[in-house]
Amino acid sequence: MDPLNAIDFEKGGGIVTAIALDDATGEVLMVAFMNAESFRKTLETGEVVYWSRSRNRLWHKGEQSGNTQRVKSIQIDCDGDAVVLRVDQRGGAACHTGKRSCFFRKLEEGQWVDEGVQVFDPKEVYGS
Amino acid sequence: MDPLNAIDFEKGGGIVTAIALDDATGEVLMVAFMNAESFRKTLETGEVVYWSRSRNRLWHKGEQSGNTQRVKSIQIDCDGDAVVLRVDQRGGAACHTGKRSCFFRKLEEGQWVDEGVQVFDPKEVYGS
Repeated sequence: MDPLNAIDFEKGGGIVTAIALDDATGEVLMVAFMNAESFRKTLETGEVVYWSRSRNRLWHKGEQSGNTQRVKSIQIDCDGDAVVLRVDQRGGAACHTGKRSCFFRKLEEGQWVDEGVQVFDPKEVYGS
Repeated sequence: MDPLNAIDFEKGGGIVTAIALDDATGEVLMVAFMNAESFRKTLETGEVVYWSRSRNRLWHKGEQSGNTQRVKSIQIDCDGDAVVLRVDQRGGAACHTGKRSCFFRKLEEGQWVDEGVQVFDPKEVYGS
């Protein structure tokens, strides 16, 4: 059976939530979205392809920065509207800010504190 | 400063994605949504309150099953439209199916395989 049949793309208007975890550490790297086409491309290529809502197109993660994500495993939730991708994060950073994870701010006594690990300088990678 | 100011509720029409991790193991337990009111309630009570899209109301996780989630930490992503909650999962199961995690199906050679840990019988908890 086509594995896409278990995914409920309709509920979210054609997309599902996709959570990428670092396969080595289990850390949550980022959250984005996938549509059916991006899920198929991900299966075909073994590298994560999201659907960019802001750009309204397929987004091969790392296409600009080189920080692609190689798929190690894929899990789906009970109601089929979210997937967890365990990945090898090339370059060691998932975030456009150059941090390892997009979730670099933590709430400490009512304030967001930056606890992120800076891996690259975004100006060097994306230009200023 | 109000920590809610860093959260971009507008982009998602009043809600953000909320990912709950088991604080002890780092396992992804579930994915749901929060609006501003549910985030405030979560901060006030120390127990996770989501926004239920299907029921269109606040959802104090575990209100029926007793399997509440005590907040251990909260992280926010770079663009402020997703949060990661590390929680103590009361009862050891987050999923309405009685599994420990909602992400109990894994893709193995093109098929979804149930690898979940059954913690409770949903018929006993929710009725038939």
